[in-house]
Amino acid sequence: MELHEECGVFGVYDPAGDCARTAYYGLYALQHRGQETCGIAAINNRELSFHKDVGLVGEVFRPQILDELNGTMAVGHVRYSTTGGTRRENAQPLTLKYVKGTLALAHNGNLPHADELRTRFEYQGAIFQTTSDSELIAYAIAQARLRCPSVEEAVCQALKGLRGAWSLIVMSPRKLVAARDLWGFRPLCMGRRGEAVVFASESCALDAVGAKFERDLGPGEIVAVEDGAVRTVQKPAGAKGHLCIFEYIYFARPDSTICGQSVHQARRLAGRFLAKEHPVEADVVIGVPDSGLDAAMGCAEESGIPYGVGLVKNRYIGRTFITPGQGHREEAVRIKLGALKHCVEGKRVVLVDDSIVRGTTSRQIVSLLREAGAREVHLRSSAPPFVSPCWFGTDIPDNDQLIACQHSGEDIRKQIGADSLGFLSLKSLHKIAPDAACGFCDGCFTGKYPLNIIDLVHS
Amino acid sequence: MELHEECGVFGVYDPAGDCARTAYYGLYALQHRGQETCGIAAINNRELSFHKDVGLVGEVFRPQILDELNGTMAVGHVRYSTTGGTRRENAQPLTLKYVKGTLALAHNGNLPHADELRTRFEYQGAIFQTTSDSELIAYAIAQARLRCPSVEEAVCQALKGLRGAWSLIVMSPRKLVAARDLWGFRPLCMGRRGEAVVFASESCALDAVGAKFERDLGPGEIVAVEDGAVRTVQKPAGAKGHLCIFEYIYFARPDSTICGQSVHQARRLAGRFLAKEHPVEADVVIGVPDSGLDAAMGCAEESGIPYGVGLVKNRYIGRTFITPGQGHREEAVRIKLGALKHCVEGKRVVLVDDSIVRGTTSRQIVSLLREAGAREVHLRSSAPPFVSPCWFGTDIPDNDQLIACQHSGEDIRKQIGADSLGFLSLKSLHKIAPDAACGFCDGCFTGKYPLNIIDLVHS
Amino acid sequence: MELHEECGVFGVYDPAGDCARTAYYGLYALQHRGQETCGIAAINNRELSFHKDVGLVGEVFRPQILDELNGTMAVGHVRYSTTGGTRRENAQPLTLKYVKGTLALAHNGNLPHADELRTRFEYQGAIFQTTSDSELIAYAIAQARLRCPSVEEAVCQALKGLRGAWSLIVMSPRKLVAARDLWGFRPLCMGRRGEAVVFASESCALDAVGAKFERDLGPGEIVAVEDGAVRTVQKPAGAKGHLCIFEYIYFARPDSTICGQSVHQARRLAGRFLAKEHPVEADVVIGVPDSGLDAAMGCAEESGIPYGVGLVKNRYIGRTFITPGQGHREEAVRIKLGALKHCVEGKRVVLVDDSIVRGTTSRQIVSLLREAGAREVHLRSSAPPFVSPCWFGTDIPDNDQLIACQHSGEDIRKQIGADSLGFLSLKSLHKIAPDAACGFCDGCFTGKYPLNIIDLVHS
Amino acid sequence: MELHEECGVFGVYDPAGDCARTAYYGLYALQHRGQETCGIAAINNRELSFHKDVGLVGEVFRPQILDELNGTMAVGHVRYSTTGGTRRENAQPLTLKYVKGTLALAHNGNLPHADELRTRFEYQGAIFQTTSDSELIAYAIAQARLRCPSVEEAVCQALKGLRGAWSLIVMSPRKLVAARDLWGFRPLCMGRRGEAVVFASESCALDAVGAKFERDLGPGEIVAVEDGAVRTVQKPAGAKGHLCIFEYIYFARPDSTICGQSVHQARRLAGRFLAKEHPVEADVVIGVPDSGLDAAMGCAEESGIPYGVGLVKNRYIGRTFITPGQGHREEAVRIKLGALKHCVEGKRVVLVDDSIVRGTTSRQIVSLLREAGAREVHLRSSAPPFVSPCWFGTDIPDNDQLIACQHSGEDIRKQIGADSLGFLSLKSLHKIAPDAACGFCDGCFTGKYPLNIIDLVHS
Repeated sequence: MELHEECGVFGVYDPAGDCARTAYYGLYALQHRGQETCGIAAINNRELSFHKDVGLVGEVFRPQILDELNGTMAVGHVRYSTTGGTRRENAQPLTLKYVKGTLALAHNGNLPHADELRTRFEYQGAIFQTTSDSELIAYAIAQARLRCPSVEEAVCQALKGLRGAWSLIVMSPRKLVAARDLWGFRPLCMGRRGEAVVFASESCALDAVGAKFERDLGPGEIVAVEDGAVRTVQKPAGAKGHLCIFEYIYFARPDSTICGQSVHQARRLAGRFLAKEHPVEADVVIGVPDSGLDAAMGCAEESGIPYGVGLVKNRYIGRTFITPGQGHREEAVRIKLGALKHCVEGKRVVLVDDSIVRGTTSRQIVSLLREAGAREVHLRSSAPPFVSPCWFGTDIPDNDQLIACQHSGEDIRKQIGADSLGFLSLKSLHKIAPDAACGFCDGCFTGKYPLNIIDLVHS
Repeated sequence: MELHEECGVFGVYDPAGDCARTAYYGLYALQHRGQETCGIAAINNRELSFHKDVGLVGEVFRPQILDELNGTMAVGHVRYSTTGGTRRENAQPLTLKYVKGTLALAHNGNLPHADELRTRFEYQGAIFQTTSDSELIAYAIAQARLRCPSVEEAVCQALKGLRGAWSLIVMSPRKLVAARDLWGFRPLCMGRRGEAVVFASESCALDAVGAKFERDLGPGEIVAVEDGAVRTVQKPAGAKGHLCIFEYIYFARPDSTICGQSVHQARRLAGRFLAKEHPVEADVVIGVPDSGLDAAMGCAEESGIPYGVGLVKNRYIGRTFITPGQGHREEAVRIKLGALKHCVEGKRVVLVDDSIVRGTTSRQIVSLLREAGAREVHLRSSAPPFVSPCWFGTDIPDNDQLIACQHSGEDIRKQIGADSLGFLSLKSLHKIAPDAACGFCDGCFTGKYPLNIIDLVHS
Repeated sequence: MELHEECGVFGVYDPAGDCARTAYYGLYALQHRGQETCGIAAINNRELSFHKDVGLVGEVFRPQILDELNGTMAVGHVRYSTTGGTRRENAQPLTLKYVKGTLALAHNGNLPHADELRTRFEYQGAIFQTTSDSELIAYAIAQARLRCPSVEEAVCQALKGLRGAWSLIVMSPRKLVAARDLWGFRPLCMGRRGEAVVFASESCALDAVGAKFERDLGPGEIVAVEDGAVRTVQKPAGAKGHLCIFEYIYFARPDSTICGQSVHQARRLAGRFLAKEHPVEADVVIGVPDSGLDAAMGCAEESGIPYGVGLVKNRYIGRTFITPGQGHREEAVRIKLGALKHCVEGKRVVLVDDSIVRGTTSRQIVSLLREAGAREVHLRSSAPPFVSPCWFGTDIPDNDQLIACQHSGEDIRKQIGADSLGFLSLKSLHKIAPDAACGFCDGCFTGKYPLNIIDLVHS
Repeated sequence: MELHEECGVFGVYDPAGDCARTAYYGLYALQHRGQETCGIAAINNRELSFHKDVGLVGEVFRPQILDELNGTMAVGHVRYSTTGGTRRENAQPLTLKYVKGTLALAHNGNLPHADELRTRFEYQGAIFQTTSDSELIAYAIAQARLRCPSVEEAVCQALKGLRGAWSLIVMSPRKLVAARDLWGFRPLCMGRRGEAVVFASESCALDAVGAKFERDLGPGEIVAVEDGAVRTVQKPAGAKGHLCIFEYIYFARPDSTICGQSVHQARRLAGRFLAKEHPVEADVVIGVPDSGLDAAMGCAEESGIPYGVGLVKNRYIGRTFITPGQGHREEAVRIKLGALKHCVEGKRVVLVDDSIVRGTTSRQIVSLLREAGAREVHLRSSAPPFVSPCWFGTDIPDNDQLIACQHSGEDIRKQIGADSLGFLSLKSLHKIAPDAACGFCDGCFTGKYPLNIIDLVHS
């Protein structure tokens, strides 16, 4: 898969201190949500300090840095660039001084009307030093704070004027405020560890720090923590919201539970539906590691075809990997994935991937399996075809790069070189999360969004 | 698992050039065999150049370095320290000047009588700048070369005087010489890509560079490549040899085939035997990722208990990970592994790991599963208990740290906190590789070695 | 000497391009003005790009970075922290987006009323991401731009509302604007190289890039460059201004000429006055390298006592120097300075330093000379005693750390262990720059400032 | 000047411990003798540990590293490559294991017959892992040790078989052995600090660590320290030896005293002789910083022409400096040196440099001074013309790059663009060190060496 999640956020209040270290472990658990920059801001005796840089959590933080950040509150952030480029300047948490002192912000999401907002602020004399939406949110909060009696009221007021996706954690010297947009696009949950209160994009980060999951924040909900007391600043909206359904298919970690739905189970179910919708005679079902494995298991279970390990992923490929030169680029897949000859040789293989974006990787994997002796390769995608951009934080390529926008089903199959090709249907897609207490956004698969994008962007 | 493999070696002759880049990709595929140091030496127009350092392949090499190393022959090495500490000085390939010019050596293995050899050389006035066995082998070759008409003859002569484990690649300005010890402890195979000849510790490295597997080198075999011609310097010994059986269980990559046996299949078989030998009523079989997964699948297949994904591994934990402080060390497992509650909650779980060394990690994982709601946890190890050191290149801890040397079976179970505990039997161990064309060394499980160690070490 | 200059600025317009490289060489020449952070912003085809970081010019920039910044305009900055800490966030040039597009700012100076200004902006809803005054100036310009027809008019308007010290270079996609505060605290000059126009804190940076010095900007003067045309936006104020006189004594490079006065000559003259004001019978005059050498030569010339080289500076001491541990800290001077025994042994030595701040280094040097055999050591400071803080950009310690604020002359002499001690008088101080076309600020020596500080700070 | 010294050595025994830190400060003081690699080896409780790398002392060592190296003996080394390239592998001290345990070697010098020696060892089966002469010396010692009862005897025996230049410090777990070659090419002195014994290439390193200079080692002398007792293993040869005279002119630090002669005084005297030998009517004498300044002062004193500061050196130019591109290379001098216009404008200038090698830098400096307004520039070199290579450790370019080998005096003057040109005569050269207790090698100026080089190299 070639899509990028944008961000993960983490926040912790713990009277026992050591919060930067807790945030560090929380960010480790959220690293899959963003690998470009990361950062932690902490409050110690009402003083804000922070560290952020380009790189993985394990690269950016050293023991000494964590010790210096020690405090009783912290917010952390991992980031993949959607808007904003990969500059170090765009690393979060955003830290700032405003009329009432200092703030730190960590934000996962995207504002489709950011340009219009920025212009509006600029006409009031504002300056922008980053290209991230978080700076816009910060301005909105700073201005609201002039009228509001508290930081949490200011957050509440400021967000009322915004449209889009945010799972936001704001930290002042005394308070931690967590907020989720009215549509509930991005996940955000809350847990406790003794007297400590923890917020995180996914429940796996609560597990990592030993916190007990308490609940997901609802769409539009705003919660403030002060001296350990948790107060609802704004109740969740009545509606069920529109969680990004792709969180289940690809973004989230399989051991997370989002809005009551296990991510692993959702993927397994997607695989089961795939088997039902696109039956085929075959000898083995294999998955593209790691994100296609769960669906492959589900597919095998439903179809009765044995599940096999057909591809092994090289665990050491990182950003510093030097790709093969001109004319050998297709070979990169050989280094990233190894085919298990004994598993596929002479066999009819069902190959399950989480989704198909440009189709280039799929073509290379199919070719790798054929070289390893596969007699047939039947490709199954546990997501429907991508047909439309995402306005709410996922880095889906432009339509002219989406294979499903440019080609019909049969053309795609030929290009990829598979013997058959099947996508999960939209109908089944909506059944992969039966335990979810929320509604979904599936705009990238349908072109229909919970918000009127055209009005928003052209307002 | 907490054992370390010691090394991986790679060698390539390619008249088309770019051999350092080929070695780079080959080492990427062998990175699991050693993560402490790596290096590549290349021959370009009879001139030797090299680069080696502490770190992963992706950290040590930059495009410019590979370009400067460009040549028509290369040897590469990845290393985990057994003897020799982690010093940069011990990074391989060892490069040297001797009476006939330059040599580069890459070596996987261990010489039990190294101390005695070193003393013998020192009494001839030799100096040693590293603590690695490779320097000893280099001396032996340099001295043999005074009497032998060619480098390959010198290698042949020198190795005759040695006892122990080596899969060795030696490169002179004109020749590439690959050699395997008489007992065949460590794997070494050969492949071709057009006119290119490739040697590697495992077949997955041949796949990574697009080379076709030709054959394994036999025990005692020595092969030389010169200007593309492959010549057998010494034929394999008649006996079947003693391949380290732990290569199948843990060291090798699942997509490698060693001596005719698929590594993945061997692990799956081990899992099947486990199910037969230690049956239990349970609801789900899960594996400890990554090395326990294959055996867990085999175990599920044989027992009929469903296979589940119960543990998710954090893919971003690297050497820079800051472990939790004093009193929290046990928590590290939470960050490294996430438990899938939906999979284990209220269930009787069979947990399959590749082996049990000290037992501490197993105890933490069992505890993690119980916290996630597992009703019972039945631990199965796809290797027998470790009872004896390895003299041939595996970093098995001293007996006083091996849980199986210190405790009886029931004690171990209690310490680990499992509801039942089962190890693979020695008898079954010898049946996990039915396709293997070789015999095995199982000394770490039996205390019986193919070589008389006591004579060797005290000679 | 232990004082720090705050900043150096550089700006260049060159239709031939390569401006980032020109700025790089210009910053090298200004590195003595700031060693903590540096940065360059460049305009290429109306697009702004930049690079800045903690470190020396030679550490922060690589050839590839300079190539990527290539353009037809550039501003550069070197910084020592006065206000703002050493954070990477405070590195300049400040780059931003505002109502009319992008801007880059490089600023040398200090605003004593920064806190009051910041508060004023915050009450309009502004947020601050750095602690540097430059961000304040940027806000002022952004707000003025809403009312002004051009960036240069906006700079002009914005600066009218400020009180304090600035030598400022602002770059928009089309224009380079250079401005100097009404008091002329910090130097700023202009030169040409063919069609290129260059601005720099000191003339030595013009020499370094092969530009011909044209003139100093006058107090309050603002100049704009557009497509090579230089336009005076605001004429210099009629008054002669108040250049920081310490620029001649310590900050500036000896080969610079500021306001018509050679820095080297000013120092030599200071030495001559010292000799007249504090005559002593002695055998040799030596200087503390590097900043005391010029005055020592002047002192020798005037007194007729031979000039000698008595101290050699270790050129390799940098920020990474590990200072001797507890109880050995006094020894650091031995490593930084070597005494020439043959020059001082048995002699009566006149030791000239540029100034005396805390007195600790002076004491150590006197002691070093006595160990080397000096019979007498007569210390002379080419600056008067520091008695008051600087509000305009120099990092003078608080009064309680200034030896001259805490002790009388004789006490100081005893503490330092000199046989006699002489400071340059205020009267002579004003005669060291006879060629200067400007007036001076000597507030740190007199407590009298060109601006009413008390009103400003408490307004 | 464009010549490179090869190395500096430092050794310390101190029962109070902390020897690695002492060596660190000693190496800082010797950094001018080599800037490519550095290293320290230390003995703590008979155990050897070491750290060495490419880089300056301040870059290679961190506090933690020094703490880990803590011990009661240490040897240190700074290196500029002569033989051996700049590889990390060639960094010293060389550390090794041999028949009697461990050794560390630090070596300043060169063996002209290294190739012949290396071949001889190779024919005994030796292997070489570096290209440095030190490895040869190590082999010689290791072999001698087989016959000798102690390490100091072995050093003594081994050195008897060598011809060339060495100032050598060898450290065993119990002893520190310092040795100087029979000709005394390179300096080596000894000092004490309480119970500590210190050896160093130059006395400035003794001063830096607070040790009192005791004496220079004589030609051929070997001294051993064991448990604080200093024992003469071999007395100095009767002859006065042949110290490299260029140590006085360029290599050594001005505050060092070598063989009884102050380096600064020697340079000052050289300047005086220059004034006598090449008188000229002029207005000012200036030196090329830093190494030409002392001679310029001497020249001014003798001639009665005033001494001036005409050139200022940029102190921040380091290895990372990006040189101006194609067609601008000549401009580099502008960034490295600033001309003081007020000092040279309209004047007849005598310019003193330490020596002239290729002439390119001299030409650029003359041109820089003319641009700054100098009416005449009379160049004086405080060394005679280079006419022959150095076999004993100085990196003098091949004859075809030496301007004095390729051109007559008048041609050189024209090429450089000076109004007159004068070299110090050989006769005067031998008078610059009247206090020296030794004879000199002036082979690079005369082609006559103390050793029969032709026999040695072709033996």
